[in-house]
Amino acid sequence: MRTRPTPQTLAALRERLSKVLEPGQLRDDPETLEEFAQDESDTGKFLPDLVAFPANTSQVVEVVRACGSLDVPLTPVGARSGKSGGSLCLYGGLALCLSRMARIVSIQKENGVAVVEPGVITGELMKAVEAQGLFYPPDPNSLEFCSLGGNIAENAGGPRAFKYGVTRDYVLALEWVLPSGEVLRVGHQPIKGVAGYDLVGLFVGSEGTLGVATEITLQLLPLPTVVKTALICFASVAEAAKAVGAVLQAGILPRTLELLDDVSVKAIDGRGYDFPPRAKAALIVEVDGGHEEAVFAELVRVGEVCERAGAVDTAVAQSDAQREQLWAARRVVSRALRALKKFKISEDVAVPRAEIPRVIEELKAMGAELGLTVATYGHAGDGNLHANILYDSEAERPRVEEAIARMLKLTVKAGGTITGEHGVGYAKRDYLALEQAQGVITLQRELKRLMDPSGFFNPGKILPLVP
Amino acid sequence: MRTRPTPQTLAALRERLSKVLEPGQLRDDPETLEEFAQDESDTGKFLPDLVAFPANTSQVVEVVRACGSLDVPLTPVGARSGKSGGSLCLYGGLALCLSRMARIVSIQKENGVAVVEPGVITGELMKAVEAQGLFYPPDPNSLEFCSLGGNIAENAGGPRAFKYGVTRDYVLALEWVLPSGEVLRVGHQPIKGVAGYDLVGLFVGSEGTLGVATEITLQLLPLPTVVKTALICFASVAEAAKAVGAVLQAGILPRTLELLDDVSVKAIDGRGYDFPPRAKAALIVEVDGGHEEAVFAELVRVGEVCERAGAVDTAVAQSDAQREQLWAARRVVSRALRALKKFKISEDVAVPRAEIPRVIEELKAMGAELGLTVATYGHAGDGNLHANILYDSEAERPRVEEAIARMLKLTVKAGGTITGEHGVGYAKRDYLALEQAQGVITLQRELKRLMDPSGFFNPGKILPLVP
Repeated sequence: MRTRPTPQTLAALRERLSKVLEPGQLRDDPETLEEFAQDESDTGKFLPDLVAFPANTSQVVEVVRACGSLDVPLTPVGARSGKSGGSLCLYGGLALCLSRMARIVSIQKENGVAVVEPGVITGELMKAVEAQGLFYPPDPNSLEFCSLGGNIAENAGGPRAFKYGVTRDYVLALEWVLPSGEVLRVGHQPIKGVAGYDLVGLFVGSEGTLGVATEITLQLLPLPTVVKTALICFASVAEAAKAVGAVLQAGILPRTLELLDDVSVKAIDGRGYDFPPRAKAALIVEVDGGHEEAVFAELVRVGEVCERAGAVDTAVAQSDAQREQLWAARRVVSRALRALKKFKISEDVAVPRAEIPRVIEELKAMGAELGLTVATYGHAGDGNLHANILYDSEAERPRVEEAIARMLKLTVKAGGTITGEHGVGYAKRDYLALEQAQGVITLQRELKRLMDPSGFFNPGKILPLVP
Repeated sequence: MRTRPTPQTLAALRERLSKVLEPGQLRDDPETLEEFAQDESDTGKFLPDLVAFPANTSQVVEVVRACGSLDVPLTPVGARSGKSGGSLCLYGGLALCLSRMARIVSIQKENGVAVVEPGVITGELMKAVEAQGLFYPPDPNSLEFCSLGGNIAENAGGPRAFKYGVTRDYVLALEWVLPSGEVLRVGHQPIKGVAGYDLVGLFVGSEGTLGVATEITLQLLPLPTVVKTALICFASVAEAAKAVGAVLQAGILPRTLELLDDVSVKAIDGRGYDFPPRAKAALIVEVDGGHEEAVFAELVRVGEVCERAGAVDTAVAQSDAQREQLWAARRVVSRALRALKKFKISEDVAVPRAEIPRVIEELKAMGAELGLTVATYGHAGDGNLHANILYDSEAERPRVEEAIARMLKLTVKAGGTITGEHGVGYAKRDYLALEQAQGVITLQRELKRLMDPSGFFNPGKILPLVP
């Protein structure tokens, strides 16, 4: 059983790190510790004992080696925008913050490649490559403040993942520091390469448990020059959910296909977007390409399919400003739902696309039965639903816990996964066995042990604790 | 040091397997052994001692367990279309042929998913899903006869990989038999999912060394309804190679961008395609989408960009028959080159896109220096070049070996990989250390040992032999 490090151990760690880090690179003032005690997962507050801010790979190695040799828990930390508690220091110890390694090393237009340090903010890379006519598609909602290192750790998705894939699909190579402190360069610089086992794939999405990226080589695409967006309203969430399938079966591959249910629509209405009276659900559909009329024609077809599926209103953005307005409706959801009740728990399930209407109905029924408000929105194109439980007082918490467990169970029963893009981390660690058989978990435990025998690297994440 | 199994061991294996397999499912007649002694890698003939044809997962498990407990080398075999010797029984033993597990289990149009057994021929799945308006993009050249199980093992690519990605990008879930005989279900049924480590990624491309797929869940896309193809000729391979970069920098993402060099053009000319006199190199460019005029407009833009880059002739297919004719030129290359000389060694390097012109020049110079004909063609869009060395007599073999080593070295020096899509297998095992540092190889060796401690599962592949 892992415990917090003793004061003696921490003193030894401080002493050792003082030789390799500048004074400002190792902090234990209360403000800093407080700042690093939480992420966006609402799963609690866990104070680290120390926060290190290495400025280069060799400093990362020194910090990793020092923690490893003293068996002090080390937790890599990005921008703390994670929703599954992956960067929480459950047993104290050292938070390894990569924010000082935030250089865009190169944007190679000819190769369609960018090389970055892990602390680069996702949205900043996007802007930098777009200025050169290139495109980095993964767009987690937190893109204005999350870091690429964190995206790698969590294999972040986002609305555009539906057409363009997730972070993993854009990572060509990594400089990676193992828990042993060994630095590996894995992957390949060309777009394609199959030499050896896919270590990049193993490290991406390992949620800071198998080591940490110190340099990231990303594939870029040509920037689509035309993007068109529509917000399509339905009289019921069931009709909206069915329209998702209809659009895809019509052979259209939008870059985003976002669903808002009745609670979400009501929460947003009047706050950033005015819905028509009959709207009880909506889809935000975005198509892109390189040809104005073609992209517009595709959006028109989406509209026709949705109308046949029962759409009651379609608003097509006629300008970038209007496009921004439609997306503002999507982006305000989380905040608007939070305003409805005092507490909000957001789950991140994904189901096979055809199961979406039924799963949403089951979630609603469950909410009604338990007397809880359930709001569902998310990336319906790939079956990834953000199901939210809203409640007002701590006294409701046992029912909320029951709701979460039932939600995850019914997701798995519908052929789904407990996490579409947020990761398991700490928040869902104890639910992993709902989805994965013991043999699968055991193999992962063995992989973890192979790379981190003492278990000091981000302890308590992903895998259920051994009893 | 692994050796061939003894007759006593083989007798014990036969005895044990006779209890779980029907008589026709276990063969050791000379014709069958001969048939399974080679693949498309030209790396030699290695007779298995036995070939097993399991019909379901539990039979696979029995065969794996039997070989494991008797320490008989077991090599999973697809359609033997591999080009790196991955399915060769280097130490004899048992070839595990999956050809009797060839059922398309389901095509779920609503979910955009297909479930298949490993023996399904890639081209047959393509046809089956296209009949339903769906699209399975990965298109290895051997698609008419290769199997999806083999594609999974090798993480197969193909011309369309440039826009659509490789096999890995379409594998959602696997039923997987580990070398221990344990059956795992890994991955997720929905399009998206990040629960736990990416075991699917670890298994795809493991070249039959970490176990074998017995069921495969694949993601499908909506079928693009419009495809346009052009063959664009250049007066030099340098100009053609530079045009590749120019097309992409113009913001166009064709689904294929194939390069033929002067030797390839000359080899094909008059055999399936008639090139204009000035053509010394060519690009085959294919664009696709859902809108006739848009796709055509994109192809026109490709033509304009190529003309500015020095194209001397552009042929646009005006019909499916003409499209087929252009592709026939591409498909005949390998055979046409083989006809030029008695022997042909095909390498499968990939380099960062901007390096293509220089690498092709260096390969030519090296060929001239060693007195060997070097022909280069391939998937230039993703930097994946099939570099062929042509020669007439076995006496030239030492120079050919030198050419291969130099080719791989100059590829790695240019930031490339020794294999873009064919895999390491047996053919490139001893070159892996050119590209990967010792630490990376050691970690892979440990992963292999974790899942196959005795090393009986496809021995001698990917990783250099320990001295």
